[in-house]
Amino acid sequence: MIQVTLPDGSVKEFESGATPFDVANSISAGLARNVISAKYNKQTIEITTPLTEDGSLVLYTWNDDEGKKAFWHSSAHILAQALEELYPDIKLTIGPAIDKGFYYDVDLGERSLSENDFKKIEDKMLEIARGKHEFSMRSVSKADALELYKKQENPYKVELIENLEDGTITFCDHDTFTDLCRGGHLPNTGFVKAVKLMSVAGAYWRGDENKPQLTRVYGISFPKQKDLKEYLELLEEAKKRDHRKLGKELQLFTFSQKVGQGLPLWLPNGAALRERLENFLKAAQKKAGYEMVVSPHIGQKELYVTSGHYAKYGEDSFQPITTPAEGEEFLLKPMNCPHHCEIYNANQWSYRDLPKRFAEFGTVYRYEQSGELHGLTRVRGFTQDDAHIFCTPDQLDDEFMKVIDLVLYVFGSLGFENFTAQVSLRDPENKEKYIGSDENWAKAENAIINAAKAKGLNYVIETGEAAFYGPKLDFMVKDALGRNWQLGTIQVDYNLPERFELTYKGSDNEEHRPVMIHRAPFGSMERFVAILLEHTGGNFPLWLMPVQASVLTLSKNYENYAQNVLTLLENHEVRATIDDRGETMGRKIREAEMQKTPFMLIIGEKESNDGTVSVRKHGGEDLGTMTVAEFAEIINTEISKTLKKFEV
Amino acid sequence: MIQVTLPDGSVKEFESGATPFDVANSISAGLARNVISAKYNKQTIEITTPLTEDGSLVLYTWNDDEGKKAFWHSSAHILAQALEELYPDIKLTIGPAIDKGFYYDVDLGERSLSENDFKKIEDKMLEIARGKHEFSMRSVSKADALELYKKQENPYKVELIENLEDGTITFCDHDTFTDLCRGGHLPNTGFVKAVKLMSVAGAYWRGDENKPQLTRVYGISFPKQKDLKEYLELLEEAKKRDHRKLGKELQLFTFSQKVGQGLPLWLPNGAALRERLENFLKAAQKKAGYEMVVSPHIGQKELYVTSGHYAKYGEDSFQPITTPAEGEEFLLKPMNCPHHCEIYNANQWSYRDLPKRFAEFGTVYRYEQSGELHGLTRVRGFTQDDAHIFCTPDQLDDEFMKVIDLVLYVFGSLGFENFTAQVSLRDPENKEKYIGSDENWAKAENAIINAAKAKGLNYVIETGEAAFYGPKLDFMVKDALGRNWQLGTIQVDYNLPERFELTYKGSDNEEHRPVMIHRAPFGSMERFVAILLEHTGGNFPLWLMPVQASVLTLSKNYENYAQNVLTLLENHEVRATIDDRGETMGRKIREAEMQKTPFMLIIGEKESNDGTVSVRKHGGEDLGTMTVAEFAEIINTEISKTLKKFEV
Repeated sequence: MIQVTLPDGSVKEFESGATPFDVANSISAGLARNVISAKYNKQTIEITTPLTEDGSLVLYTWNDDEGKKAFWHSSAHILAQALEELYPDIKLTIGPAIDKGFYYDVDLGERSLSENDFKKIEDKMLEIARGKHEFSMRSVSKADALELYKKQENPYKVELIENLEDGTITFCDHDTFTDLCRGGHLPNTGFVKAVKLMSVAGAYWRGDENKPQLTRVYGISFPKQKDLKEYLELLEEAKKRDHRKLGKELQLFTFSQKVGQGLPLWLPNGAALRERLENFLKAAQKKAGYEMVVSPHIGQKELYVTSGHYAKYGEDSFQPITTPAEGEEFLLKPMNCPHHCEIYNANQWSYRDLPKRFAEFGTVYRYEQSGELHGLTRVRGFTQDDAHIFCTPDQLDDEFMKVIDLVLYVFGSLGFENFTAQVSLRDPENKEKYIGSDENWAKAENAIINAAKAKGLNYVIETGEAAFYGPKLDFMVKDALGRNWQLGTIQVDYNLPERFELTYKGSDNEEHRPVMIHRAPFGSMERFVAILLEHTGGNFPLWLMPVQASVLTLSKNYENYAQNVLTLLENHEVRATIDDRGETMGRKIREAEMQKTPFMLIIGEKESNDGTVSVRKHGGEDLGTMTVAEFAEIINTEISKTLKKFEV
Repeated sequence: MIQVTLPDGSVKEFESGATPFDVANSISAGLARNVISAKYNKQTIEITTPLTEDGSLVLYTWNDDEGKKAFWHSSAHILAQALEELYPDIKLTIGPAIDKGFYYDVDLGERSLSENDFKKIEDKMLEIARGKHEFSMRSVSKADALELYKKQENPYKVELIENLEDGTITFCDHDTFTDLCRGGHLPNTGFVKAVKLMSVAGAYWRGDENKPQLTRVYGISFPKQKDLKEYLELLEEAKKRDHRKLGKELQLFTFSQKVGQGLPLWLPNGAALRERLENFLKAAQKKAGYEMVVSPHIGQKELYVTSGHYAKYGEDSFQPITTPAEGEEFLLKPMNCPHHCEIYNANQWSYRDLPKRFAEFGTVYRYEQSGELHGLTRVRGFTQDDAHIFCTPDQLDDEFMKVIDLVLYVFGSLGFENFTAQVSLRDPENKEKYIGSDENWAKAENAIINAAKAKGLNYVIETGEAAFYGPKLDFMVKDALGRNWQLGTIQVDYNLPERFELTYKGSDNEEHRPVMIHRAPFGSMERFVAILLEHTGGNFPLWLMPVQASVLTLSKNYENYAQNVLTLLENHEVRATIDDRGETMGRKIREAEMQKTPFMLIIGEKESNDGTVSVRKHGGEDLGTMTVAEFAEIINTEISKTLKKFEV
């Protein structure tokens, strides 16, 4: 008999040789139906692998990342078999699962592949899948392994086997196909019900441009046809919502080769959007007792030597700026904290003055390789909605809760309903890796966990994931397309107060070190706007829309009336524009739709005589004819649904 | 007979040998009484110098800079005589007039001088002055000149004479004193009625630290005792209003050696002040059709090569920032215009889209030697209230007027009542020094002059003072202490549109170059805040004050009522704080006075029972007891006196 420990800590006894499938079956028939992969004692195995010793078992279904990995890894085998059957002269190399699907790199010889061949390959893959062929692992000797691939004249697999350092070489068989493989498969090919090849691309063997060029075939597969359909729709939607595309259409930002890559230029619409976001956060922060400060975008190298950033990042960053005659060295600031420490140090503080909460929309510059840059999500200059809270250790609990309140308010006002939190603690086995006393770490970690509990967050604890200077809480939001984004971070810091020798006078009249909290609910304005664009497709929450209503005139006759309507709208604090061009109403509506304008106010003879507007919502809903005051009431009610007052 | 041309262009005939004094006398007895110095054919002369050829004459009084220069230069001679009479063994070197007064550098040998000696020296100077000794110039041979100073064993004067390149050596005599001198004196010492020595300092002979150390005695003199008194009062007041002192007292900004010199850190009070100023300008700019943009603080070196800034300033600036592996070079941006040109270029424009007005509070970095840095007026990083208007040549007139309107609105709202304007045109004799066609220059220069006239500005025209890229209009404001500050500039630019190949499609369907206007009403936030501090002594216009009213409680019993008052004040949009510390009312008032708080609302038993506040103005005026609503009415009426609505 063996003892199998499950993730919830429960222990079950099985006969030696029982499989993960048997364990699943002992839990529930549903689980047995859905389980596709497993880990035993942290080792990936098949669900058909016999368990012969005590251990910890984790079972995975399609809903787990590990489950998907097994699914896609197995699908790569099926792809390889399909390719080999269709094109017997090609040579296989490697084919892993990736974030979304899998690929296989093949040496096609003289042959080439294009999208036109996809259908044939997909059909072949589905044919293999329908055969419900079992995947089974077996150990082989190095000599046998080499023999197989030498016979196949496949130098790639030969090279792989020769470079394998440990003695165990395993093959995976299914149907007539065998591949060199570490394991982690579906029980059989029949689980794969839908397949789609996505693209072909060139790739060098082992990523080395001096080695032969291979063809990489990307694909994805699913347990249900419906899942594939949804995935393809999602892809289509994601393409439409690509923030780079929307940024161009909505004229939000641009890049200039002359200014430099990764350095966004915010166009008027984008700058206005950003300002509204900043003003929204400023207002909440003011209520929460933050004070704005302004600091320069450079600092002496010495500043970052003091903070420790130079030792850590100096060599891989934008290099120092020197001055003509004075031998000074400055750095573009990669973060605002050292400056805020110096602002704290400009004064002497008593415990009665704390907490001090210094906030700044601080633009920082960090070097990224040009290949890594991507729209507004990966840039070289960005503006953090940064703040640093300097408090006594006893205030940490309360401050942490307040910061969570602020972050939740931000998420709620911007339509991010789905999010989880991750609490990162230090590794208690490796205390020497971290700065700060045991007592302070205990205080800070408890403060975070208590706050997360008290605020009802859906959180996971990751031990050993804390920064060396303190524990932290990160928020992960799920966007409308189900993609996860890291947004918002709250970090405790014992390091900088030490390095900058920050002090306050305690009630005992002695000097003490304050604790610092770093926090940024948006993260950065650039990244946040990008995510917001992809989340909303440009249909921002109403309060944030650049133009909330557009007045469309049926003809030139109504220009004056349109002006009156505009003035009334402005008096009601509705952001509005007029489209009184000599275009057709159809075209005006199309363009307003394209600009995502939430409300179109159509005016013609009747409206101008009655002093009304005919209201059409973005998407087409007709709200009927009403006065501007009535419309203002509708729009303001709508706004108050997302944008609540921030209460402290 | 000789022909003497006067500054107004009129020509008068005099007998050869007539003096500038005679000319002044022929104009008016008042002028003859006040004239103290003159230039003839651009040569500085005494008013007693005979005129023996035709020429142009300018007469100067104390009210002219040239008049003051003669006055103070003459006073330096008097100082030298006084020093020599009191301390016969000292050696004189040089003694020029300076911006405010004059100095004389002397070699005191073993002796030293301190402020304790000033009275004795001043008395001796006044005694000499009362003698009404005439200053008279004479030519001497080099040999005679050297003989005199060799006899006096004065190696400094000997060195000066030996280094004189031209043949003419002149001495100036008055009373028993003779000095090597180029001329430009008062008629006699009697004009000097008041004298004050200001300080002594060390100075090296010829500014070379390897040469002997001399003692520099600084002084100032006036034609009336009253002038001296006023000057000393002004100095005292200026010391009180020094923005560095007020900036510390009001906790507006600080500097950190670690961050770097010349890089201000704005503390919460200062950042809030700055934000109010920015919001004020933003609101006006929005009305005037400006659009905000945001651009990064660095740009590729190439960007500034294109703009021409690199060729002009590159070597003397902050040096380029390189990236680790990619061989890129970036520069801290010294100005925002290249970025705004690239923003213009992100779109294609038609003449119907123009003017485009891109505004940004853009922080720029310019290297200044550390010795040149001074508080917020001379810094290495500053934020310009920058905007660039891109328009057609035909729109220049109108745009220029609109910019002047905006500048005048800014000055008016901030209490700068006294200002003049300078129109800088190109030198028509040296057209090749300038870029742009004759036609465009004529258009632009006329646009500026017409706008200055139409807006009723008090302006002077300076020919040849235009930048090479276009004409400009600068504003000079006089502060409360009578000091002049350059504030606000409007420049036309034909250069950057050319260099960045900016275009718009004209009504003729052809591509044309737009004209650019650079403008910054504040100049920079740093400099403007400094000047505003020195102008107002920290008593900003009411709308701008950080705290407009402070609620002072007579005892802890009134804390709750104070909170109610505060809420009411906030509802009336009055910025207020509470001082409910257990301090005496006297101390609370003193501290509120120190913080320049415009209104103090005192509450005790009576006020709390009646629901009122007792209002005390900054400076002490008692406005009596009233409700918060009544007080809000008072404060809002007061605000509307300076802060009007900006009308376009």
